Amino acid sequence: MAIALEDEKLRRQVEALHTKYIRCIDDDRLEEWPALFTETCLYKIITRENFDQGMALGIMECRSRGMLLDRITGLRRINVFEPHRYLHQISGLTIEQENGNQVSCRSNYLVVRTMLDGTMSLFSAGVYQDKIVLEPDGARFQERLVIADSRRIDTLLVIPL
Amino acid sequence: MAIALEDEKLRRQVEALHTKYIRCIDDDRLEEWPALFTETCLYKIITRENFDQGMALGIMECRSRGMLLDRITGLRRINVFEPHRYLHQISGLTIEQENGNQVSCRSNYLVVRTMLDGTMSLFSAGVYQDKIVLEPDGARFQERLVIADSRRIDTLLVIPL
Amino acid sequence: MAIALEDEKLRRQVEALHTKYIRCIDDDRLEEWPALFTETCLYKIITRENFDQGMALGIMECRSRGMLLDRITGLRRINVFEPHRYLHQISGLTIEQENGNQVSCRSNYLVVRTMLDGTMSLFSAGVYQDKIVLEPDGARFQERLVIADSRRIDTLLVIPL
Repeated sequence: MAIALEDEKLRRQVEALHTKYIRCIDDDRLEEWPALFTETCLYKIITRENFDQGMALGIMECRSRGMLLDRITGLRRINVFEPHRYLHQISGLTIEQENGNQVSCRSNYLVVRTMLDGTMSLFSAGVYQDKIVLEPDGARFQERLVIADSRRIDTLLVIPL
Repeated sequence: MAIALEDEKLRRQVEALHTKYIRCIDDDRLEEWPALFTETCLYKIITRENFDQGMALGIMECRSRGMLLDRITGLRRINVFEPHRYLHQISGLTIEQENGNQVSCRSNYLVVRTMLDGTMSLFSAGVYQDKIVLEPDGARFQERLVIADSRRIDTLLVIPL
Repeated sequence: MAIALEDEKLRRQVEALHTKYIRCIDDDRLEEWPALFTETCLYKIITRENFDQGMALGIMECRSRGMLLDRITGLRRINVFEPHRYLHQISGLTIEQENGNQVSCRSNYLVVRTMLDGTMSLFSAGVYQDKIVLEPDGARFQERLVIADSRRIDTLLVIPL
């Protein structure tokens, strides 16, 4: 009946990956963000509405670490958007072991955006649905679906959620 | 001085119950929500103001799993409210052991509501104050007080917080 | 490779300190708040903008438990501000051990403010950057920097964040 230390260790690794993820974005260290994914991966932002109807259309979709890197490079080059900062909150992480080194996770996220002039707003709220692999040098996302409750996502969105 | 594995196990069970609770609501699987409570129970939504003055008046109050079920059934039947989704965040969970299989808990909650048109708003913020029993088949709420900071709660509120 | 029980114990102590901190503020038990700091300490609220430019100017700055106490006493005496409540959420806590009894921490915070009339707003979002010492009778903040994303902080701010 006792909780396994191994389970706790796994949980801490998964939590640490989640924290690294939000730090990269919230600290605007986006260049470090692709390294949190496996070489071949899926990163997709989708509205809850589209997800419930079969996931056809994503707002952002990348299928390799290279594509994630391209996304960040492009973002740095154009840089048309008004300066702002994101601040993530995460709650309710659950972890289900799939096999020896792979887990499925889910958590609630909330992103608050603060503009240069100080205006704060609820930018996005929803669910992270992940597949994470535990590699010898750390945990990585094989898949992260960002399922946003609101359909009203800025279509110029270039920064990951 | 070492942390007891038993304490960690207890904490994980309590956290898991909290997560199941917010999932039922956030995923609109409200039919599964009453099963998280004991047969005889107390579920009460109350404003901070009324709570501080002696808890007289609750906004919603149910005293058995049956009443919780009735609440959900009624809600599905009338369904007058505009479609929306809730998204919970929880922080600062503390657990105090009362006796062998009962604990008292407290946590901060925040609920963001997203309407069909995409509008997001801070819907409710406050404190969960719980009595939880650890039964052989899992943890359940014997009592959950939802103490909302705002007095301005929609009086048509039918969905649990 | 197994997670050390000692690490878990440390983490739980640090989490407990974080929870005590937000409880003191959210419950308006501000008189208990200074006891969470060491005698000589640093408590500073600063905007992200000023922090990134070298921390020159803080919005609030206290360098001892006595100064923290003075702050609360003054606040109780003047009491000019409109009644309201804070509600904290915290996510993404990381802990780095500095030496035997000192750790550096970081976490994301979000504060929702509810006014007497029920209006809720995003009051502050940002990062806690801490130095915490583990003393025989519990963990305490030696240093807490509150780095707020927004520059638009009420200059009459008297309650700690």
